[in-house]
Amino acid sequence: MSVMVVGSVALDSVETPLGRATEILGGSAVYFATAASIYTKVNLVGIAGTDFPAEHIQFLAERGVDIRGLEVVEGETFRWVGRYDFERNITQTLDTRLNVFADFHPKLPAGYESSDIIFLANIDPDLQYEVLNQVSGAKLRVVDTMNFWIRGKGESLNRTISSVDIVIMDESEVRLFAQNQNVIAAARSILTLGPRVVVVKRGEYGSIMVSDTDYFIAPAYPVLQVKDPTGAGDSFAGGLLGYLDQTKELTPNALRQAIVHGAAVASFTVAEFSIDGLRSLGREDIAQRYQELKEFTHFDDKEST
Amino acid sequence: MSVMVVGSVALDSVETPLGRATEILGGSAVYFATAASIYTKVNLVGIAGTDFPAEHIQFLAERGVDIRGLEVVEGETFRWVGRYDFERNITQTLDTRLNVFADFHPKLPAGYESSDIIFLANIDPDLQYEVLNQVSGAKLRVVDTMNFWIRGKGESLNRTISSVDIVIMDESEVRLFAQNQNVIAAARSILTLGPRVVVVKRGEYGSIMVSDTDYFIAPAYPVLQVKDPTGAGDSFAGGLLGYLDQTKELTPNALRQAIVHGAAVASFTVAEFSIDGLRSLGREDIAQRYQELKEFTHFDDKEST
Repeated sequence: MSVMVVGSVALDSVETPLGRATEILGGSAVYFATAASIYTKVNLVGIAGTDFPAEHIQFLAERGVDIRGLEVVEGETFRWVGRYDFERNITQTLDTRLNVFADFHPKLPAGYESSDIIFLANIDPDLQYEVLNQVSGAKLRVVDTMNFWIRGKGESLNRTISSVDIVIMDESEVRLFAQNQNVIAAARSILTLGPRVVVVKRGEYGSIMVSDTDYFIAPAYPVLQVKDPTGAGDSFAGGLLGYLDQTKELTPNALRQAIVHGAAVASFTVAEFSIDGLRSLGREDIAQRYQELKEFTHFDDKEST
Repeated sequence: MSVMVVGSVALDSVETPLGRATEILGGSAVYFATAASIYTKVNLVGIAGTDFPAEHIQFLAERGVDIRGLEVVEGETFRWVGRYDFERNITQTLDTRLNVFADFHPKLPAGYESSDIIFLANIDPDLQYEVLNQVSGAKLRVVDTMNFWIRGKGESLNRTISSVDIVIMDESEVRLFAQNQNVIAAARSILTLGPRVVVVKRGEYGSIMVSDTDYFIAPAYPVLQVKDPTGAGDSFAGGLLGYLDQTKELTPNALRQAIVHGAAVASFTVAEFSIDGLRSLGREDIAQRYQELKEFTHFDDKEST
């Protein structure tokens, strides 16, 4: 079993009310791969510049991530500079330099095309579609996106979304894409395009999963101190799909469990800068939070009259 | 068993994206009493003007609500005029006329002082404290409040909160009151003032319950079409405390069930204007949504490896 991810590899500079960090390891493919590799074999597709520190590549390789798909080309790695204002709930992008990422065209090394699960992280929907055409045999194709592509490449995004099994998006993105303020109605309208499942991320409020036959309200793990929210969504997807790949089944029940695994993994991500909260994270740590979430959400069937 | 509520009795004029209604029955005490009377005996304390339609008084009386505590005095009933913007998630108050409510001092008719549960809806914290002094024997004292009192009468509010068992507040109010952006940390700091339980309302995201020994993440029932959010919080509290009064036990488990009952009741409230969604609501309708919420939130303990 294996999961393939296509996305960004970045060096982030982040400021939050709890600190600041410069040129740290980031990018959607990196967060996803770090999380999913706790569960299963990950095939990574991305691009970095020659300035990308070797230690980061080594870190991924040591987790068993197949990094043959990480193209390293002359030039600078993608940079993102951002600031979080928790009080006003704002993420401010101060600088984005695409650098080598601007000319990225995903190339799949031999063997990647037989990955069981494909995760198309938030990149140009035309590139996402290019990838889908190279992996026609995958059991599960999953896509994420963002407001930028919804506004700027709506038709391309429609084509990509119509070709996948699961859509994972933020609540505001689901509303924007479907042009419907009611998030449940919005998610349902996405189902009519083709996907079997829509997972709506709601940050600290958890997530919901909507399919034709199922509706699941998933909790977020309560984090007393969020240090850096970067990568929460991608590591959520990584935990979710990593778990799903390893369970080898795609039942509604397995999907619910996978979403809770994703929530548990994301709670470790946001407690530290970069992927530091995931570096030494093991299955037992996740299992513990999974059990806690079970207890936090439990209420009896029987009335206690 | 009985629940007493002290709060406003109002005539609301409301505009939402789904319609508009003028001079409809409203007020925190009315929403609470209508909801709680599905479960138990309610003793209402409030004030109305001589213009308050007799049919509303009759409606409450027919539900078995004790309305001896509803003082009717010369003058006009409290009026609220508001508009909801769902797109921007804004509640806009266009006009507030306190009228007879401006000189309200809660007077408890004989027998009210032996109510088992006391709900102090969102009114001046000094009045809330006056009421507490008249009901020293209550098993459970519960308070709600709002930003207006947190900002304007902080010390009085502290005194009231220190004297109750359960605090029910909106998320933004909990943050403002505790001066802490992290809602869990904020709720915990309220516990240090004396209350045993803090219930944090999060609108469409559900609620959380925090105590020294328990943490509960409660879902909201997914409502596909919200017509009028007015009274969601008060009918949530009404369902919660009505259920709790009727179960006659105050275990953590009963409290969890009660919160889910509150969520189910509130979901009926917001589907119609005024209390219309609750008029013919029965225990079976609530039980059905309770079961659905159980299914919507369920995930297995066992991993399916």
